[in-house]
Amino acid sequence: MKLEPFYRRALYYETDKMAVVHHSNYLRWLEEARLDFLDQMGFPYDKMEEMGIMIPVLSSYCQYKYAVRFNDTVCVKLHMEEFNGLKFRISYNVTDSETGEIRLIAETSHFFVDSSFKPIRIKNVNREIYDIFHNAIGADLYSGE
Amino acid sequence: MKLEPFYRRALYYETDKMAVVHHSNYLRWLEEARLDFLDQMGFPYDKMEEMGIMIPVLSSYCQYKYAVRFNDTVCVKLHMEEFNGLKFRISYNVTDSETGEIRLIAETSHFFVDSSFKPIRIKNVNREIYDIFHNAIGADLYSGE
Amino acid sequence: MKLEPFYRRALYYETDKMAVVHHSNYLRWLEEARLDFLDQMGFPYDKMEEMGIMIPVLSSYCQYKYAVRFNDTVCVKLHMEEFNGLKFRISYNVTDSETGEIRLIAETSHFFVDSSFKPIRIKNVNREIYDIFHNAIGADLYSGE
Amino acid sequence: MKLEPFYRRALYYETDKMAVVHHSNYLRWLEEARLDFLDQMGFPYDKMEEMGIMIPVLSSYCQYKYAVRFNDTVCVKLHMEEFNGLKFRISYNVTDSETGEIRLIAETSHFFVDSSFKPIRIKNVNREIYDIFHNAIGADLYSGE
Repeated sequence: MKLEPFYRRALYYETDKMAVVHHSNYLRWLEEARLDFLDQMGFPYDKMEEMGIMIPVLSSYCQYKYAVRFNDTVCVKLHMEEFNGLKFRISYNVTDSETGEIRLIAETSHFFVDSSFKPIRIKNVNREIYDIFHNAIGADLYSGE
Repeated sequence: MKLEPFYRRALYYETDKMAVVHHSNYLRWLEEARLDFLDQMGFPYDKMEEMGIMIPVLSSYCQYKYAVRFNDTVCVKLHMEEFNGLKFRISYNVTDSETGEIRLIAETSHFFVDSSFKPIRIKNVNREIYDIFHNAIGADLYSGE
Repeated sequence: MKLEPFYRRALYYETDKMAVVHHSNYLRWLEEARLDFLDQMGFPYDKMEEMGIMIPVLSSYCQYKYAVRFNDTVCVKLHMEEFNGLKFRISYNVTDSETGEIRLIAETSHFFVDSSFKPIRIKNVNREIYDIFHNAIGADLYSGE
Repeated sequence: MKLEPFYRRALYYETDKMAVVHHSNYLRWLEEARLDFLDQMGFPYDKMEEMGIMIPVLSSYCQYKYAVRFNDTVCVKLHMEEFNGLKFRISYNVTDSETGEIRLIAETSHFFVDSSFKPIRIKNVNREIYDIFHNAIGADLYSGE
């Protein structure tokens, strides 16, 4: 399977008085890129939540390399660094869609929980979701190989 | 009963590249002022939601008189314009806390619903909440009279 | 000229604990739709701001007809109600992109200012921008007629 | 000098459909705590920006220990881990204000720039700001010792 990168244009209300995108918004873009990944894998997150499966964030790390300005479009590519059936860790590469210059390097880690926030072993709950994450480990999701 | 006005300082991330508070944030401040009103009346909104009562917004109107800048503090006073047991309408007066100059004039209308979003007649569900809204109609909540 | 409507999917972080999009976010979507209109008219807002022209909001009105949920896509169509060279007023029709059901009816009014927030008569400053707004008055922007 | 911790109540619109505060908002609270630190040190950030000094974020790290819910109040204490005249690194301890239980552990790093985003050596530009950061290194800011 070959993924399309996630493209996102910086919105006016995402800028602050420094005239650049406020750094908190990047965590929102990363979430959008994760959900877009699930969409492309054929298992949208709303479907997952309807089944009582949620994926809260355990930690986040962002290195803000260069400011993004209003109307700039960035390209987000993600990489499944780790997945053990309970938790996973994704790294992100965010570049300017025109110049290819790096904007942000980031990582988030997550775990699977049921609707009462109890950790679950996803293989036992939904094999399809397990496979999506398992097959993505270490793969170049954008090369089509 | 005499209410304290709701004071709110403009936060850095609430500004946009025009170097003023983005207009969408005022609706959030009005919500904070409404919930502060409920706090001061002794019936916090989280307690209400735990009882299965919610108060969605039906409509909003904002007249942006003068921009608010980072670190400015505004003073929000609200006025219960109408309440009929099902719906209510609140008007807001937002001024600069130092100069007293007007910043925003606004109105929001709401209705009471249960946890499945069905409209409810609040008198039949919770008499205490009914009284809070009924007694506030037309009153100057900040004069102590 | 024939415009494409503006489509927008509700993002996870735009929902609140009521499990619907927080009402403040609609003002942001309307801004996105306005800027998309300018993009489609060939005069992106960042280009306008670089020329020292800004379009602050004077007032907003929203009637929240029906809640939008995570991953729902809405279709925003706008209509230039008034424009007199100094100010303009736009109305918005926001529907569910699948069912066509109404979600939001809204209006915003704006004026043109220079970089020191002084009102300007846009015809004297930029004729092209004037024409975009003037030609849009009352037109059905999406019918191609 | 003895600082007061920064207290912050979780607002309704900061929650998402998981009924907890969306993780992106914590970066905003950390910013509020940093600016509150500058306020308490007698050098508010708006005064700094008026002098052409800005403090962008270089990186952020958050470990989300336990969800914060609507109307919970957290207590933020910060610690100046490093400062070398050009850059600084702050760690944050975010606890529930009632129970004292940990909610978030975080770190952000920053550098000083002038209004054209060029890095500056703050000692050469403003000695008072230099002293605030220098004196805070490694200190327990809340013990009054």
